[in-house]
Amino acid sequence: MVTRRLVLAAAPAVLTGASRPWSEVEKILASGNVKGKLSKEDLPTPSLVVDLDGLESNIARMASYLKAQGRGFRPHAKTHKCAEIARRCMAAGAVGACAAKIGEAEVLAARGIKGLLLTTAMVGKYRIERAVRLSTKQPDTIFSVDNAQNVSDLNEAARVAGRRVRVAVDLAVSGRTGITPGAPAVGLVEHIVKQSNLDFQGIQAYAGHCAHIVGFENRKKGSEEAMGRAVETRRMLERKGIACGWLSGGSTGTYNIDSHIDGVTEIQPGSFLFMDIDYNRIGGKETGAVYSDFKNTLTVLATAYSKPSDDFVILDAGLKAFATDRPFPPEARGVAGSKYTFSGDEHGKLDLREVAAKVNLGDRVELVIPHCDPSVNLYDKLIVVRGEQVEAIWTVDGRGKGQ
Amino acid sequence: MVTRRLVLAAAPAVLTGASRPWSEVEKILASGNVKGKLSKEDLPTPSLVVDLDGLESNIARMASYLKAQGRGFRPHAKTHKCAEIARRCMAAGAVGACAAKIGEAEVLAARGIKGLLLTTAMVGKYRIERAVRLSTKQPDTIFSVDNAQNVSDLNEAARVAGRRVRVAVDLAVSGRTGITPGAPAVGLVEHIVKQSNLDFQGIQAYAGHCAHIVGFENRKKGSEEAMGRAVETRRMLERKGIACGWLSGGSTGTYNIDSHIDGVTEIQPGSFLFMDIDYNRIGGKETGAVYSDFKNTLTVLATAYSKPSDDFVILDAGLKAFATDRPFPPEARGVAGSKYTFSGDEHGKLDLREVAAKVNLGDRVELVIPHCDPSVNLYDKLIVVRGEQVEAIWTVDGRGKGQ
Repeated sequence: MVTRRLVLAAAPAVLTGASRPWSEVEKILASGNVKGKLSKEDLPTPSLVVDLDGLESNIARMASYLKAQGRGFRPHAKTHKCAEIARRCMAAGAVGACAAKIGEAEVLAARGIKGLLLTTAMVGKYRIERAVRLSTKQPDTIFSVDNAQNVSDLNEAARVAGRRVRVAVDLAVSGRTGITPGAPAVGLVEHIVKQSNLDFQGIQAYAGHCAHIVGFENRKKGSEEAMGRAVETRRMLERKGIACGWLSGGSTGTYNIDSHIDGVTEIQPGSFLFMDIDYNRIGGKETGAVYSDFKNTLTVLATAYSKPSDDFVILDAGLKAFATDRPFPPEARGVAGSKYTFSGDEHGKLDLREVAAKVNLGDRVELVIPHCDPSVNLYDKLIVVRGEQVEAIWTVDGRGKGQ
Repeated sequence: MVTRRLVLAAAPAVLTGASRPWSEVEKILASGNVKGKLSKEDLPTPSLVVDLDGLESNIARMASYLKAQGRGFRPHAKTHKCAEIARRCMAAGAVGACAAKIGEAEVLAARGIKGLLLTTAMVGKYRIERAVRLSTKQPDTIFSVDNAQNVSDLNEAARVAGRRVRVAVDLAVSGRTGITPGAPAVGLVEHIVKQSNLDFQGIQAYAGHCAHIVGFENRKKGSEEAMGRAVETRRMLERKGIACGWLSGGSTGTYNIDSHIDGVTEIQPGSFLFMDIDYNRIGGKETGAVYSDFKNTLTVLATAYSKPSDDFVILDAGLKAFATDRPFPPEARGVAGSKYTFSGDEHGKLDLREVAAKVNLGDRVELVIPHCDPSVNLYDKLIVVRGEQVEAIWTVDGRGKGQ
């Protein structure tokens, strides 16, 4: 019905800009076989776009930094939820991937990702059963525990299934999950090592409250204090003759702090892959107020689809296109002076009063994301570009897999 | 591998509560054939749950109210994105459904929903082509326009395709999309009615800024003022001899205001289906500070999966389980005195210091949602319950269909 001729004839470039029919673009997108066939300009909006040059550079930088420090590298997949990215990290030297939820881990395992670490305890209906099932499939999976009854339950399930399950003790070094470091944690580990079917691996310690402390020196102080409690717990275990050769923690904000702490053996950053405005604002070790160790690779490509006044345009990306948990909005790249505000579920309002080069109806605008992890969770696909060319489409395998 | 015997033997109810193996529950959930087979207690968490008694009551109340006022009822599907809910609204008398984006409309049409109204203009790459395609499939679809060039483009695409396309003029009665009411809008309609292949239907006027004005009288004043400009535009058209028999607008916050405005012919509410904390706070016409015309039917079912201290538990529902655009958090139903705060991507912290009946590790907590539309957009499935029994699983067909 709708032919190339129709589109070329009927759709002036100003408002549609389409150089080929949607029916054709739709087929290419659905096939996943996009390389050499689409440019960024061909994408429908809003699209979640990742710059591959930047992503490769971020992976290489983190991997080589941690290698130079002699630390393991287990990136957190809760950021990207994408098996292809986990694979690329492993190709660069990662030992596996962290997962926040069992559903996320299951889908990554189904896509071939090994070396999974579950960073939260398997408490709640079915989680133990799912853990034993995953461990059966991939025996190198490590499960966090923070409660004695849960340890007993997990052991019993493993015993009945005739399996051995690897566990790490989750330490409450932040205000989130885990058991209190020191004596309570040591007591839990003593309980773990008595179990017939559990293999104690070491310590999981994520100091989430430190990741975004503004100013490198303050962040260093906070993380050294928090991770110091984890290291001290490790020493206490070793003094009791309990082998604890592994201590995993850290974040994009603290990778260059925690990897210098004696006793921390592995770093589990996530956001470094994409970066976001939130991390840009914490300040760098050498770069002052802007933290720029890693490149902003993730954007939402939007279109100005209504222009009720010269002062602003309405973009087709609103509350459903970005996570809004941070107190600052998306930033329009290359539109100096513009100011984005959320304007309902579907719309964003881009204030143009301080902008020299106006944005017109139909124009594309690329927006840097305030907080990457929950924003990625809004999209089924990551559109992978190199410069203006679309290289690939990657599935966000773990999107919505929060159970 | 994992049998019922295993789960019963290995998983004490305190921390797992599983009365049947996950392998069985997983199969039932995947089959979609759940009626009589699962109770709410069997669900994995976090799950998005809708109470069917309440939903039916909300639909019946809105439908009968608007019928009594002699107004059309076209619920906005951007709230629920679910063809089954659109179908139930139509069974109760709705004339169709609104959709925010063409992708949402396409998927609803594919699931058999007729009478679609696109509430935002088809500006941006491919949108005109997709509009003509949808119009070809479902000629009763109405497309909003707010720009003369876009009108010409749409007409030309319709002409080449040999189709007639229905359009409504989107009025900027709020600070969002649309053309200025009055003379500019009349000018645009004069342009529309000259087109060879467009059929002018009337006016789309969503006063988004009024929906959440706190206090019924203030809201009434705001909405009458905003919708008054739409009615006046309608009158101007009619004085020029341009038939304009249809004017659609309104929201859950203003349904009982706008449906009393002479000249408004159709109401397009969405949130009344689920309600949320946001709408509860705007105040009702007869109910004072709490707006309770409709029932809160939508919750997230979560599990307490870590308890680092007696003062709080960590729930398995955080930034990825709720939209966070409102300045108030989810509320734990039936846990008086508790206070939820977001605690990262995956976790919610439930403060228990003022709670009499403690929440223990493994306990379920049901949370009322701050803002329904973008929260629904986080989930692939709606779990439909009647009391404690799971009645059905409905697909959130339009989830992520923001393009």
